[in-house]
Amino acid sequence: MVGGGIGGNIGAVHRIAARLDGRWVLVAGAFSSRDDVAHASAARLNVAPERSYADFREMAKDEAARPDGIDAVSIVTPNHMHAPVATAFLEAGIPVICDKPLTAQLDEAEALAEVVRRTGTPFVLTHNYTGYPLIREARQMVARGELGAIRVVQAEYAQDWLAKPIEQEGQKQAAWRTDPARSGAGGAIGDIGTHAFNLLSFVTGLRTEALSAQLTSFVPGRRLDDDAQMMLRFEGGARGMLWASQVAPGNENGLALRIYGEKAALEWRQEDPNRLRFSRLGEAPQWLTRAGHGTSAGGTRVPSGHPEGYLEAFATLYTEAAELIGGGDANLLPGIEDGLDGMRFIAACVASSQDNGAWTAL
Amino acid sequence: MVGGGIGGNIGAVHRIAARLDGRWVLVAGAFSSRDDVAHASAARLNVAPERSYADFREMAKDEAARPDGIDAVSIVTPNHMHAPVATAFLEAGIPVICDKPLTAQLDEAEALAEVVRRTGTPFVLTHNYTGYPLIREARQMVARGELGAIRVVQAEYAQDWLAKPIEQEGQKQAAWRTDPARSGAGGAIGDIGTHAFNLLSFVTGLRTEALSAQLTSFVPGRRLDDDAQMMLRFEGGARGMLWASQVAPGNENGLALRIYGEKAALEWRQEDPNRLRFSRLGEAPQWLTRAGHGTSAGGTRVPSGHPEGYLEAFATLYTEAAELIGGGDANLLPGIEDGLDGMRFIAACVASSQDNGAWTAL
Amino acid sequence: MVGGGIGGNIGAVHRIAARLDGRWVLVAGAFSSRDDVAHASAARLNVAPERSYADFREMAKDEAARPDGIDAVSIVTPNHMHAPVATAFLEAGIPVICDKPLTAQLDEAEALAEVVRRTGTPFVLTHNYTGYPLIREARQMVARGELGAIRVVQAEYAQDWLAKPIEQEGQKQAAWRTDPARSGAGGAIGDIGTHAFNLLSFVTGLRTEALSAQLTSFVPGRRLDDDAQMMLRFEGGARGMLWASQVAPGNENGLALRIYGEKAALEWRQEDPNRLRFSRLGEAPQWLTRAGHGTSAGGTRVPSGHPEGYLEAFATLYTEAAELIGGGDANLLPGIEDGLDGMRFIAACVASSQDNGAWTAL
Amino acid sequence: MVGGGIGGNIGAVHRIAARLDGRWVLVAGAFSSRDDVAHASAARLNVAPERSYADFREMAKDEAARPDGIDAVSIVTPNHMHAPVATAFLEAGIPVICDKPLTAQLDEAEALAEVVRRTGTPFVLTHNYTGYPLIREARQMVARGELGAIRVVQAEYAQDWLAKPIEQEGQKQAAWRTDPARSGAGGAIGDIGTHAFNLLSFVTGLRTEALSAQLTSFVPGRRLDDDAQMMLRFEGGARGMLWASQVAPGNENGLALRIYGEKAALEWRQEDPNRLRFSRLGEAPQWLTRAGHGTSAGGTRVPSGHPEGYLEAFATLYTEAAELIGGGDANLLPGIEDGLDGMRFIAACVASSQDNGAWTAL
Repeated sequence: MVGGGIGGNIGAVHRIAARLDGRWVLVAGAFSSRDDVAHASAARLNVAPERSYADFREMAKDEAARPDGIDAVSIVTPNHMHAPVATAFLEAGIPVICDKPLTAQLDEAEALAEVVRRTGTPFVLTHNYTGYPLIREARQMVARGELGAIRVVQAEYAQDWLAKPIEQEGQKQAAWRTDPARSGAGGAIGDIGTHAFNLLSFVTGLRTEALSAQLTSFVPGRRLDDDAQMMLRFEGGARGMLWASQVAPGNENGLALRIYGEKAALEWRQEDPNRLRFSRLGEAPQWLTRAGHGTSAGGTRVPSGHPEGYLEAFATLYTEAAELIGGGDANLLPGIEDGLDGMRFIAACVASSQDNGAWTAL
Repeated sequence: MVGGGIGGNIGAVHRIAARLDGRWVLVAGAFSSRDDVAHASAARLNVAPERSYADFREMAKDEAARPDGIDAVSIVTPNHMHAPVATAFLEAGIPVICDKPLTAQLDEAEALAEVVRRTGTPFVLTHNYTGYPLIREARQMVARGELGAIRVVQAEYAQDWLAKPIEQEGQKQAAWRTDPARSGAGGAIGDIGTHAFNLLSFVTGLRTEALSAQLTSFVPGRRLDDDAQMMLRFEGGARGMLWASQVAPGNENGLALRIYGEKAALEWRQEDPNRLRFSRLGEAPQWLTRAGHGTSAGGTRVPSGHPEGYLEAFATLYTEAAELIGGGDANLLPGIEDGLDGMRFIAACVASSQDNGAWTAL
Repeated sequence: MVGGGIGGNIGAVHRIAARLDGRWVLVAGAFSSRDDVAHASAARLNVAPERSYADFREMAKDEAARPDGIDAVSIVTPNHMHAPVATAFLEAGIPVICDKPLTAQLDEAEALAEVVRRTGTPFVLTHNYTGYPLIREARQMVARGELGAIRVVQAEYAQDWLAKPIEQEGQKQAAWRTDPARSGAGGAIGDIGTHAFNLLSFVTGLRTEALSAQLTSFVPGRRLDDDAQMMLRFEGGARGMLWASQVAPGNENGLALRIYGEKAALEWRQEDPNRLRFSRLGEAPQWLTRAGHGTSAGGTRVPSGHPEGYLEAFATLYTEAAELIGGGDANLLPGIEDGLDGMRFIAACVASSQDNGAWTAL
Repeated sequence: MVGGGIGGNIGAVHRIAARLDGRWVLVAGAFSSRDDVAHASAARLNVAPERSYADFREMAKDEAARPDGIDAVSIVTPNHMHAPVATAFLEAGIPVICDKPLTAQLDEAEALAEVVRRTGTPFVLTHNYTGYPLIREARQMVARGELGAIRVVQAEYAQDWLAKPIEQEGQKQAAWRTDPARSGAGGAIGDIGTHAFNLLSFVTGLRTEALSAQLTSFVPGRRLDDDAQMMLRFEGGARGMLWASQVAPGNENGLALRIYGEKAALEWRQEDPNRLRFSRLGEAPQWLTRAGHGTSAGGTRVPSGHPEGYLEAFATLYTEAAELIGGGDANLLPGIEDGLDGMRFIAACVASSQDNGAWTAL
C-alpha cells in the first residue's frame, strides 16, 4: 500500500476491503511521505520494519526484487500522486489497484494509460460502487433488454460536509480536495461526480457524447467547484442529468441512479443499497432485494434481508482483482479506460462550464 | 364553469375542490362546445337548463346581466381556449378562476394580462400544488430565513402515462396535450414543467434569470416534447435543475422539490404530501408532518396523521378565491403574474432548446 | 346533525365528508345540548334558525313531520349519547349515520340493534377507514383468494396525544374520552382499538373467536386504558395480535394492518394510504397504488399519484349512505352488526384483562 | 472452528466476521462430523491438514496442548451440539465463541453455565444484532434517560422462508431447525424469537417478569412452532409484545424494535440498520444515522452515509471477543447469562403456550 498512514481515511477502507474475503494480506507499505509517519503506521499495521518504506520508488524496486514480493500495490494517496506512484510500480511489473479519480490532470492520465498498455501489467481502479450486487443486477437487466432502449438517465451524488469552509480551518480531507494542486481541475466533480458518471456508464453501457455543465464554488474562498450540474447527451439519443454537490445539507453520501427505458425503469440509492426499484411500464413497481426473489447477479455473502454495505461492495473489487491478477476473468472490474473516461469527463465539465455551458464533447 | 363536460377529467376535480369547504355552488355552465354534450352535462350536474349554455360568450353576457349571476367562472378547457374565455368573462366583470397554464401562446397571455389589469377583475390561476399546507410551511420557512441564502434548487415532475404514443390511439387527454394547436409550444414542459417551475418559485421566492434547456420528443411521431431537462440560474447566484418527463416508467405524479440553503434544506414530494424533510446543517434530519409538531402554516382540515391530499390542496385555492372575490386578503393565491411567468418559462425553454441549450433569459 | 357544535372536532369532518361528493346538504341540527351553543353553531353553519334545535328529540319529531324533512341524521356526539339519539331518530323513521363506537355500553348497543331490526330504518356506522380505496382493494384480494388461507394478522393503531394527563388540564377531547361515564368501559381500546378491529375484520372477513388482552393505564390518574395489547384467535385457525396505544411518542394516527396468508401478504398504513404492499411468496414485493396498475376496486376521485386521504375515505361512506337510503346497494357500508361486534370486542378486552388475560370469547 | 464445513451457511459468516477487523486468523477446525467433509473443508479454507480434526474433543485436547494452539474456538454447529462442544473446549481452557441459542435444552444450558463459572474461561454468545452501532446508540440513549421510563416495547422478527414444508424436501437448513432433536423445544421462537428477545433486553435493560404466549405450527407436518406471538410484562410495569414468524410472506429478516417511553421513542429495523427514528414527545421525529449528527456510540468503520451491515455488526462481536480474551474490557458482549436468559425465554414460551397462554414467569 502507498499512502493510507495514520490520520488518513480511505486507506483503512481499502485494508478492510482487501481482508474481508481473505484474499489479501498487507505485508509492505510506503504509508506516508513523512518518514516517521510511514514507519509508525507500518508498526501499527503489523508490517515488518524491513518492508516499511519511506519512498514509494524504493518500495517498487525492492518489492519487485524480493522472491516474496507483493502481488499488487494499493494506491490511496491524494490524486496528484496517483500517476507517479502507479507508473513506478507498473514499470516494476507490479499490478496496481488505484483509488479514483485516475490522476489529477488529464495529460498525466493519458501518459499513465500508455504505461499500462505498454507494460501489460494489470491495473484496477476502485470505482467501488460498481461492486454493489444490485448495481450489477441493474447492469445485467439493462444488458438483457429488460428496460428497452434507454431514454433518460438521472444521476446524482450529494453530500453536505463541505457546506462550510472547513478547509480553511485545517480539516485535512477538505484541504487537499479543495486544492487544485493536489486534486486537479475538479472539486466536487472530480471527487464524487466521477463516481456518479462511472456508475451510470457502468450500468447503462451508454457512451456519453457531450455535456453542458455549470460548476459553482458556493463557499467563499473555495478554489474548486463544490456544486456541479450538467445535462448529458448519450449515443443513440438518450438524455440525462447529473448533479454532484458537497454543499447540500441533509445529504451524507446521496449517490443515486435512475434509469428510464422504453419498457421499464430502475432506481437505486447508495444509502439503501440492498433494494432496487424496478418498474415495468403498466405494472405496479417491484422492490428487488439483494439476493432476493427475482435477482440473479450473485456476488453476495449473506442471505437476503441481512444488509450488506459499502465495505462488502469494495471488497468485491479486491477479490476480483485477486482473480484478475491470478489470471482469471474479471470483466466487471473498472480499469484504465474507465479512469481515462473519468478524466475526460472532468475536463469536459470544466471546459463547458468555463464556456458558459457550451455543449462539449468528451 | 366553462369546459368540464362529460368525458373530461379536470372539471370534476375543480367541482369537488369548489364544494369541499362549502364556499361555492355550481349553478351555471358552458360545459362543452358541442350543444348536446353541454346540456347533457348540465343535466347530470344538476344545473338548471336555463343556465346551461352552449356558448361561453352568451354565458358571460347573460350571467353578468342576471341579478343572481355567478360570482366567478371556473375555466377548465384545453389551453388554447383559456384566453378567449377568460377575456369574455373579465370584460363582463366576472371574476375568473382559470386552470393552468395561462394560455397556449405567450402573446395571448400578455394580451390577457392587459385585460386583467385594465378591468381590475380578480383572476386566479389554479397552480394547485401551492395549496398544500407543507408547501406553504416551506415557503414560510424560507422567508423566515431558516435555510439561509439558497444555493441549489432541484425540481422535477415525472410521469409515465405518455411513454407510448397513446395520442395516436384516440386517448382524448393525450390528444390535446400533444397537439401544438391546442396545447401551445410546450408539451411536458407546459403541462407539468410549469407546475414544477411555479412551485419552486412559490417556495423559494427566487426570480429565475436564465435557463439552458434540452427538450426531447422520445415517442415516435409526437409533435411536442415529452421530456424536458434544464439548468437554471437564479437572481443572487443560486443554481438549479429542473426535469419534467411524461415518459419515465414507474412515475405517476412525481412532483418533487428540494431546496438547499447555507444553513438548512427542505425536501417535499407530492405523492407523500403530508411530510416535509427538514435538515439543518450539522443536525439529524427531521420529518415535519402536516399540522404536526413544529409546523405553523395552518390551512389544514383534519388532525395530523390523517392524510390530506390533492383535492384538499386544490380546495384551499377555491376557498381563498372566495375570500379574494369577497374582498378579503388572499396573498398566497397564484394570479395573472404567475401565469405570465409560466408562459415566459415555456417560451424560454423552447427557445433555449432550439438554440442548442443556449442560456436564455426569462 | 346532532352534536358537532362550535369547539367540536369530528363534526366538521363529517360535514366535509358529506359535502365532498355533492350528495348531502346540511339543513338542520341539534348541534349542542347547550341552547346558546346550538344556535350560534347553526348560524355559523348557515342552518335556518327554525331548523336549529336545542333538543334532539324535538328535532327528530319535527323533521319527521316536515314535508322537506331531513333524509338522514348524522350523530357526532360523545359515545354515551349515541344510543338515545339514534333511537329517537330511528323511531321517527329517519335513517341514522352514526359515529363509532356504537354506544358506551354493550347493553345499550344490543337494545339499539333491536330498534334497528324492528324499525327497518337504515343505520350506518362511520368506521371511516373502510372507505379507503386500497382497503377495499385488499378486501377484494383476500376474498378472491390471492393470499390463500390467512395465517397471521397484525393490526395496530398507535397515537401519542394522551401521553400526558391532558384531561386533567381541561382538554375537552381528552376529557370525555378518558371518562367512563361518557366513553364507556374502554379508553384507547374503544376509541381507536375498535377501528383496528373493524378494519381487520372488514379486510380479512375472519370472525374473531377469542382474545387474550392486557389493558393498561400508564398515565397516573387516568381512569381508562391508554394502551391495549392482545392476542387473537380467528375461526379456521388464524392467529393475530392487536395493539392500540395513545401513549406511543412519535405516532400521530399510526393505524396499520398486515395480513399474511399461505400464498401472499398485504401491508397497509393509514398515514400512507395510497400505497399497498403486496408480497407473493417467492416473488419480489410490489407496491400497488390507489387507482394504479393492477388495482380494480375503484372508488377513487383523482388519478393515481395524486394522493387522496382521510376526508375522501370518509366521504365515500356518506356517498354510499346516500345510495343506501335512496334504495341502492351499498354492501360495503358498516352497519349495526359491525357496531355490535365492536362493542363485544371492547367488552371482551376488558373482561380478559380483568381476568389476567384469560382467553375470552367474543 | 467447530462446524461450518462445506454446505453450511453461518460458518462462512463467522469467518468473514472474524477476519474483517484483522484480529483473527483461522488455523484449525473440526468442520464436520463426517471425516471427508471435515478435511475437504479444511483444505478449501487453507487450514493445515494436521490441524483439521474429525473430532471436536480431539481438537480441544490437541490445540490446548500446542504452544501455538488456538486463542479461541468458534462453534457454529446445530444447537444440540453447542453444549458438548463448548464444554470440551472450556474444560481444556480454550475460550469459546458460540452461536445462539445457547443450547437445545434448558438443562444443558444450565450445566454449561456451571462449566463457564467453574472454569472462568471466557464465553461469548454471538447475539450478533447487538453489534449494530445504532443498537448500541439506542441502548445508551435509554440508559441516559432520554426516553424516560419505558412504557411499551414492540419487538418482532418476521421471515417467510419456512412458509412451505421445505424441510420435507431435504432443505438442510430447514431440516435441523424444525427437528426437536437438533433444535430443541423451540422452532421460530428459538431460531429468531431469541434474537428479538435478546435485542429488546439489550437495548432497554428491562428484565422480563412473565409472558403469555401462543405458538403455532402453521405448516402441515411441522413439528416445531413456525409462528410465535406473545405479550410481555417487564419489571417496573412496562408492557410489551413480541412476534416471531417464519411464515410471513414478504419478510426476509424483518427484525424490528420499537420502544416507547414517557418522554420519547425509538424505532429501528434490521433491514435498514443505518437509521434510527427518534421521536421526542411534542417534537417532529428525527432520523439519526450511523455515525451521523447527534450520535455518539462509535463502533463504526466508514463515514455516515456509507452503509454498514450485518457482517460489520457481527465483526464487532469478534473484535470485542479478541479484546476480552486479551484481557480487555468488553462489557457489551453477550455472554453465558444472556444465553441462559434466552433458554429460559424459550422454555417459558413453550410452557405458556401449552398452558393456553397462561402468564408464565421466566
